[in-house]
Amino acid sequence: VTLLTDFGLSDAYAGIMKGVVLAIAPDARIVDLTHAVPPQSVAEGAFILETACRYFPPGTVHLCVVDPGVGTARRRLIIASRGQFFVGPDNGLLSPALDDAVRGRRQPGQGYEPRLLSGLGDAVAWELHVTGAVSATFEGRDVFAPAAARLAAGEDPARLGRRIDDIFAFPAFRAPAAGVEIDGVVLHVDSHGNLISDIRAVDLPPEPSIHTAGAALPLVGTYAEAVGLAALVGSAGLVEISLPEGSAALRLGIRAGARVRAVAG
Amino acid sequence: VTLLTDFGLSDAYAGIMKGVVLAIAPDARIVDLTHAVPPQSVAEGAFILETACRYFPPGTVHLCVVDPGVGTARRRLIIASRGQFFVGPDNGLLSPALDDAVRGRRQPGQGYEPRLLSGLGDAVAWELHVTGAVSATFEGRDVFAPAAARLAAGEDPARLGRRIDDIFAFPAFRAPAAGVEIDGVVLHVDSHGNLISDIRAVDLPPEPSIHTAGAALPLVGTYAEAVGLAALVGSAGLVEISLPEGSAALRLGIRAGARVRAVAG
Amino acid sequence: VTLLTDFGLSDAYAGIMKGVVLAIAPDARIVDLTHAVPPQSVAEGAFILETACRYFPPGTVHLCVVDPGVGTARRRLIIASRGQFFVGPDNGLLSPALDDAVRGRRQPGQGYEPRLLSGLGDAVAWELHVTGAVSATFEGRDVFAPAAARLAAGEDPARLGRRIDDIFAFPAFRAPAAGVEIDGVVLHVDSHGNLISDIRAVDLPPEPSIHTAGAALPLVGTYAEAVGLAALVGSAGLVEISLPEGSAALRLGIRAGARVRAVAG
Repeated sequence: VTLLTDFGLSDAYAGIMKGVVLAIAPDARIVDLTHAVPPQSVAEGAFILETACRYFPPGTVHLCVVDPGVGTARRRLIIASRGQFFVGPDNGLLSPALDDAVRGRRQPGQGYEPRLLSGLGDAVAWELHVTGAVSATFEGRDVFAPAAARLAAGEDPARLGRRIDDIFAFPAFRAPAAGVEIDGVVLHVDSHGNLISDIRAVDLPPEPSIHTAGAALPLVGTYAEAVGLAALVGSAGLVEISLPEGSAALRLGIRAGARVRAVAG
Repeated sequence: VTLLTDFGLSDAYAGIMKGVVLAIAPDARIVDLTHAVPPQSVAEGAFILETACRYFPPGTVHLCVVDPGVGTARRRLIIASRGQFFVGPDNGLLSPALDDAVRGRRQPGQGYEPRLLSGLGDAVAWELHVTGAVSATFEGRDVFAPAAARLAAGEDPARLGRRIDDIFAFPAFRAPAAGVEIDGVVLHVDSHGNLISDIRAVDLPPEPSIHTAGAALPLVGTYAEAVGLAALVGSAGLVEISLPEGSAALRLGIRAGARVRAVAG
Repeated sequence: VTLLTDFGLSDAYAGIMKGVVLAIAPDARIVDLTHAVPPQSVAEGAFILETACRYFPPGTVHLCVVDPGVGTARRRLIIASRGQFFVGPDNGLLSPALDDAVRGRRQPGQGYEPRLLSGLGDAVAWELHVTGAVSATFEGRDVFAPAAARLAAGEDPARLGRRIDDIFAFPAFRAPAAGVEIDGVVLHVDSHGNLISDIRAVDLPPEPSIHTAGAALPLVGTYAEAVGLAALVGSAGLVEISLPEGSAALRLGIRAGARVRAVAG
């Protein structure tokens, strides 16, 4: 069972969810992905989940709670995909469970907004049944953690919810090409201040330069080659902008959502 | 074994305690409650422990270190209660091991201070024997973690300490009613800046309004309903004050210990 | 398997490494030492590792990534020492695997710089073979975590790399005596703002006073005895400077690398 939330680590909220999981599934292995998703930033949570989920073995249950609508009528989901389960609210957070082809592309010039998809490809989704007393502010404890624990303990998802055919999802995190350039956006600012864009290395034009916030940056191979601001291909295969021994985000004064372009050299 | 400390995560102190536990009890499951209790804030540590301990299964050992008196003559405790063990200093931190009825109520107008209780109800306490070399600054490593590990490995607490009949504890975290209003205090500011008071939902008058720092707030049902500052019943069944997409603590300029009143509508 | 990195906890980088480990070694126990080593501060990472590694049982694999040279030609190491394995880059980070006598002393007046040592004492080192696709920015995921997982699963290090006889290491973290005084430096600022020096308690002159940044401080026995700034012997047996309910680092305006002297009283 992995955990991804925006709860922070100053409180016991993440620990409480682990207690709930272990009380139901005493043999579960629990791993934190992160509890520092920017508060209520569903898109960044989905992106972080996407970079991580492929590295976990089959049978993993990803328990994900970034949920501005907690306590309201939005649905709670289980998704089965690629031998893993994803549990969380129906707000786009679980998008990485779906293949890129299913999620489609965002339009040039637009950002990432969740939309209701009615074909899920190879993934299967259930809407969680909710029974018993549920806090209006902490469904992670009362709804999502128990469901994840039951899945980890081997229970059939069909016993936990009813099959559904549509869920909310973000477009694939992949910038659309627009003629000779790629029109990207910053998906995430990591804890070193690196700006991670949605421009994939495989889409880059020859000898690219990367443009954002008035800066035109060369593409280097490693952090050690960078002198001042530089762009490089990061560990998720995406172009990122980095400042050695500093924060590119602070230097450029930009954050998630900012525009980034890749232009042929 | 759960861990709750004020050590932060910038150092290996928490990791070292886990190493000590695993060296003694290799099969122990270890879960962090939090290591971000405000430094030396024993009352907030006790409150966070109270919100979390009930969600862990029987046999859990709660290893708790918020200990301004480390290295001095205060006692070190094991408490057995409700099928769980609590290990830590005798300064009130382990109060959640005791039932509310045993802990009694704070007086109206006063805050939370630990007091020596000589009846422990259904709980049983031991004063830890201390042997061997002990650091004057890190008893978590040298005293508390080994004791918790031995309990997790099945050792009898009577072999680790001597029975005692009194310990320091905070009054129950429950505001006293004063005529037509409830006289509460802020117990904890969580990492989203929510102000969690000691006013229990079950004690609220009809159609209550919540007053603090000059503000009079309606009681709403979910975070999503709040427009600006609002009060709602949080996941521990306590009234909390929240600011959507912001910090109520910063907006109001108040922190743990501030007064909050609930008044009938 | 323990983890020590400078990745922070805002991203899933640490979680991804755990996924990689568990996919290869499903039964591995994973413990975080810390992910908050100051970015690219190899010496502080090595010091934190030194304070922690001795408390873990034989068979532990310490997976350590503070690696400004990621993606460049520096070697990747496995070191076997004292029944444990150490995995990480060859930049001094793994120095605690070597005995102090092997590491030697720093010169008075100098700081800590890694140097190439050609005798390793009782430790044995291998240079990791690197095969397959490797990210230029995240060898923790692609190189170090898989190697640590294979060691945890019982694989022979000789199958993972080739024996080497020299590695980079820092001098022993122990200040040299210079006549009647000890000439120390601050090794690390912990999360409470305590300044931890390289002056060992066993080297202290009689009735010492501690001097730094213009302040002359008495040596006290416990945090509770301190009134204002004070020096005491911390949990690693080193002199540290502490400010009760505050940060000694902020008060004195100094950080890692600053000079500290111990003078006979």
